[in-house]
Amino acid sequence: MLRDDAGSPPENYPESLIRDRSVETLHLRKKVPVAILGATGSVGQRLIQLLAHHPWFQIVALCASEKSQGKTYKEAVTWIQTTPLPEAIGLLPVLSCEPNFPYKIVFSGLSSSVAGDVETAFAKAGCVVISCAKNHRMDPDVPMLVPEVNIEHIDLVKEQKFPDGGMILTKPNCTVIGLALALKPLAVEFGIEALHVTTLNASSGAGFPGVPSLSLLDNLIPYIEDEEEKIETELSKVLGSYSHAIVQDYPLKISASCTRVPITEGHTEIVSVKLKRQATKEELIRIWREFSPPIQDLKLPMSPTHIIHYFDEKDLPQPKLQRDLERGMA
Amino acid sequence: MLRDDAGSPPENYPESLIRDRSVETLHLRKKVPVAILGATGSVGQRLIQLLAHHPWFQIVALCASEKSQGKTYKEAVTWIQTTPLPEAIGLLPVLSCEPNFPYKIVFSGLSSSVAGDVETAFAKAGCVVISCAKNHRMDPDVPMLVPEVNIEHIDLVKEQKFPDGGMILTKPNCTVIGLALALKPLAVEFGIEALHVTTLNASSGAGFPGVPSLSLLDNLIPYIEDEEEKIETELSKVLGSYSHAIVQDYPLKISASCTRVPITEGHTEIVSVKLKRQATKEELIRIWREFSPPIQDLKLPMSPTHIIHYFDEKDLPQPKLQRDLERGMA
Amino acid sequence: MLRDDAGSPPENYPESLIRDRSVETLHLRKKVPVAILGATGSVGQRLIQLLAHHPWFQIVALCASEKSQGKTYKEAVTWIQTTPLPEAIGLLPVLSCEPNFPYKIVFSGLSSSVAGDVETAFAKAGCVVISCAKNHRMDPDVPMLVPEVNIEHIDLVKEQKFPDGGMILTKPNCTVIGLALALKPLAVEFGIEALHVTTLNASSGAGFPGVPSLSLLDNLIPYIEDEEEKIETELSKVLGSYSHAIVQDYPLKISASCTRVPITEGHTEIVSVKLKRQATKEELIRIWREFSPPIQDLKLPMSPTHIIHYFDEKDLPQPKLQRDLERGMA
Amino acid sequence: MLRDDAGSPPENYPESLIRDRSVETLHLRKKVPVAILGATGSVGQRLIQLLAHHPWFQIVALCASEKSQGKTYKEAVTWIQTTPLPEAIGLLPVLSCEPNFPYKIVFSGLSSSVAGDVETAFAKAGCVVISCAKNHRMDPDVPMLVPEVNIEHIDLVKEQKFPDGGMILTKPNCTVIGLALALKPLAVEFGIEALHVTTLNASSGAGFPGVPSLSLLDNLIPYIEDEEEKIETELSKVLGSYSHAIVQDYPLKISASCTRVPITEGHTEIVSVKLKRQATKEELIRIWREFSPPIQDLKLPMSPTHIIHYFDEKDLPQPKLQRDLERGMA
Repeated sequence: MLRDDAGSPPENYPESLIRDRSVETLHLRKKVPVAILGATGSVGQRLIQLLAHHPWFQIVALCASEKSQGKTYKEAVTWIQTTPLPEAIGLLPVLSCEPNFPYKIVFSGLSSSVAGDVETAFAKAGCVVISCAKNHRMDPDVPMLVPEVNIEHIDLVKEQKFPDGGMILTKPNCTVIGLALALKPLAVEFGIEALHVTTLNASSGAGFPGVPSLSLLDNLIPYIEDEEEKIETELSKVLGSYSHAIVQDYPLKISASCTRVPITEGHTEIVSVKLKRQATKEELIRIWREFSPPIQDLKLPMSPTHIIHYFDEKDLPQPKLQRDLERGMA
Repeated sequence: MLRDDAGSPPENYPESLIRDRSVETLHLRKKVPVAILGATGSVGQRLIQLLAHHPWFQIVALCASEKSQGKTYKEAVTWIQTTPLPEAIGLLPVLSCEPNFPYKIVFSGLSSSVAGDVETAFAKAGCVVISCAKNHRMDPDVPMLVPEVNIEHIDLVKEQKFPDGGMILTKPNCTVIGLALALKPLAVEFGIEALHVTTLNASSGAGFPGVPSLSLLDNLIPYIEDEEEKIETELSKVLGSYSHAIVQDYPLKISASCTRVPITEGHTEIVSVKLKRQATKEELIRIWREFSPPIQDLKLPMSPTHIIHYFDEKDLPQPKLQRDLERGMA
Repeated sequence: MLRDDAGSPPENYPESLIRDRSVETLHLRKKVPVAILGATGSVGQRLIQLLAHHPWFQIVALCASEKSQGKTYKEAVTWIQTTPLPEAIGLLPVLSCEPNFPYKIVFSGLSSSVAGDVETAFAKAGCVVISCAKNHRMDPDVPMLVPEVNIEHIDLVKEQKFPDGGMILTKPNCTVIGLALALKPLAVEFGIEALHVTTLNASSGAGFPGVPSLSLLDNLIPYIEDEEEKIETELSKVLGSYSHAIVQDYPLKISASCTRVPITEGHTEIVSVKLKRQATKEELIRIWREFSPPIQDLKLPMSPTHIIHYFDEKDLPQPKLQRDLERGMA
Repeated sequence: MLRDDAGSPPENYPESLIRDRSVETLHLRKKVPVAILGATGSVGQRLIQLLAHHPWFQIVALCASEKSQGKTYKEAVTWIQTTPLPEAIGLLPVLSCEPNFPYKIVFSGLSSSVAGDVETAFAKAGCVVISCAKNHRMDPDVPMLVPEVNIEHIDLVKEQKFPDGGMILTKPNCTVIGLALALKPLAVEFGIEALHVTTLNASSGAGFPGVPSLSLLDNLIPYIEDEEEKIETELSKVLGSYSHAIVQDYPLKISASCTRVPITEGHTEIVSVKLKRQATKEELIRIWREFSPPIQDLKLPMSPTHIIHYFDEKDLPQPKLQRDLERGMA
């Protein structure tokens, strides 16, 4: 995904990213039309919120389940984001989740109960499917990308056998993203042997309607279905090494414990890491502050300037204060 | 509902209450068996919590929707009360909501989507149905009781044409109960011309799952479906006068505004009343403190000692501090 | 406060605003230096947050109580805003609250325990003091401004007898601002006879540390010191008419009831108005939507495009969803 | 602390507990008079709440700081407990924190800023001081008791050199109590090598006023002063072994991480333990369920029937549901 002013790609840049025809259109002045699957759900809404003002993409199609079809998006959705629904988006018709339109790039906010088959159908129809659902994450030929951590995994898509450039890309569970970002520089520099993580998950992570308020007001729920398992399996793949068309899991012992806490947005994770080589606190902070993966050289429009923020203040970070840091991307 | 030691009923005590055969069994030493409809829902759970240790009643049958039938109650329910589910209750089988059992007294926590027909079916089968649902509240021959306010309305049941002593009794919406209690002594003493009420409804009022946590954490929702209408229609009936087998609505102008607030339990109401005759603050407080309706003379097991608590402290009442006052019955 | 491109002031524009020398500097390309009193408190922090990126003003002096003096602002403050403390502001020294500097414009976030005398001292030293404190609000020669509502009150300052252009301007209590904005067009069009308002005040309104979390989590507090009195007295002045160098209170009967609710930011008010002349719902909405006071023609940098937002959706507005509407200025 | 019907003390029962004269009075029919230090603070209020209806103790003296003296307790206190202040307690005068009264047993809810010296003064005056403050916890001759875990430590008091039977007893930090109870049976059965604990502390733990609501609503604070250090030092002492008049710390590696969460009451701890000898899940559950320390044989009035509750349900325990289990003592 190169911009006109970005010059040559950095060395060792994944081939598939450079050659992909659908991505080259990004050089053009015109915005690239994109569709959103599962548009009325909370993940779909968040995708709309993030993409509505994106300099490269133009949302042109919104797909959702049968009960929303035939309505305008505004009629169909219970909008729960903190910024208003853009008026133009609200007027779009809600379409069915079938690949009967000409757009190549499709973001999926589908729930896991249907995402597996629907996403495959779109890939078979030649679409580039960027999925937030868990269904295809652990498929051996599907990359689970955190661009700052493992952009080279994208070449896995060459093993996918969809026609017309169709492909499926995934991202890991949201708690894994932050964790992978924090651990990647440590893995490179010191090696990681074992990991103990306690996540404190906000209400937003459960989607909508998600957790009833009667269960969460003035309460903690020390169990989130599948969440501990996801962290344990996904993290190893995200941190894994890519070679010869496969991703080899990063070998580390992970123990995870997840608790739902009564806050709106912003997950917090408390992590203990056993490194292979001893590090001082100063080394750790320096390595985090200097962390600058190749993807940042591209200066993508949504990239944060600094990916990892280390706070000297002993009572930071706090969800309320750092929630909007770098527009929520740090 | 007389106890052995209660002596003669107070003067003007409703006839039907005294003569009703099903109620006379209460004099017996043995507990009266009761059934609960809609037992797995949040209202049903609350009924179980209140009746589980009641000196007169013994819960013997729990009825719920098809998907719970054939399970034990413990398997079928997502128990969300703050006191543990009594073990013996948990072992009861969940039955269908059909009147094919020998018990005469039935408490209904059914949702309004089904309560209308099911409750009628039980009354036709000769049961005394005590309902928390809204469906029959405004029926002209169904009393909507707040025992401390309008116990004489109970004679309305004589107009009901169900066989074998079958009858339907209802209670008003929860915000109306508190309001009616506070207003009754004022209506008697001064007359009420108009009323403006703002209710701040806790999450519990919406049932379970009710309001999503993502909607209510750190938020207010200034609209509750039907709630304002319910207050406006139900309050007039509850405060109404009974004579010649009909309840005449109390003539007052009501404006209500309802807001859902992020607290677990305990509704707060802010009320402005226009009285027909001017009253001093001292008169008001005295009248509230002295309010002692006939039903209290019966010393029923769940009756609070004082129904209305007036707080001199200007920052009281607060839901957190007064929630459990007189076991939640004041 | 005219911008270069704003052309002539609108007709009937207050004289003092046009002639005031200190304000004319705003036409200059250079930013106007300003000082902030009470800079470490929650109101002071909010002033810094709002002014830090203002196109006309440059914060150059931060004044606070003795215990902060001699420190940098970053050392002295417990920053509780949701956007980070601007780095350059953090490095400023904390000064004493004495008028021994050359800046003419002073924003005061002082607490009411000291604001009265300190603000007077600055005005006597020739400063234009724009105060958020309550101390001088009801002084007969001090305007209490909501620019969209009563900008003409600003001429009151001509009655103040401070030397060298010194003057004190105030704004009303935060709940009064929203109320005055909503009521002004109704007062103009229909006349207002009486008003009943219930405010649901967020935690932020109590300053910092303000209300203990133990008091407010899962709770409501139906009393806020002085708040009801402030609404009742301040609203009449804000809506009052200016002529012959005095502001005549708007004659209306106000009853206010204030409750602290467990949300972070965003006050909600539930208002019943008795108009002098009957209005239909459609008239009300049209009048709100068309409300465009003279100040808006100036297109001031912080002015919202629309001051009043009317929502057709019956469950709006909600603090969480509309908190950031028009950058918090609507 | 033996009751008449308790028969002989269990074998190995601490000598000092049996011989202590002040405790023998408990055999009498009359209640033992006790005083409370720091009575107006949140710990003091909690002590009053717990002792007000205690079958053995009678609260007769309430001591607090100078600004409360000369008032009745009701006038002096901002009562923040969820049960009402007992009327008789409210009428007691507030006394100074000086040992000029005849009562032998003194419960201290003093804040750590003054507890050290004041408690010593009372012990010197011959009082048995039972302290909730941290000041004397780590003194080598002061026992830090969790009666179900280390009742034998009580013999440490024989090393204290106060006259007339004066002595100081302490309890550990609240998060350490739950932790010690859960770990004690594991330490006995398997040995503990290392421990990783994440605590999620409720607002109540910070006392009153404690954490501002603006800091905690919709937020987490990943730092609590001293809390991690307290867990690390106190736990080793509580689990330590007593012999020859000293307590030897239990040798284990502890890492603790503490976060304040926005709930009213009920701390949650997420613990990983490395045992010296491998245990199966079934062994662990059995050992917890069978845990029955000698102190339980005494059937003390406030003792829970079961100290440790193991929940099969994977989403339990939750602060809201289990908060009141065994009256808060489990």
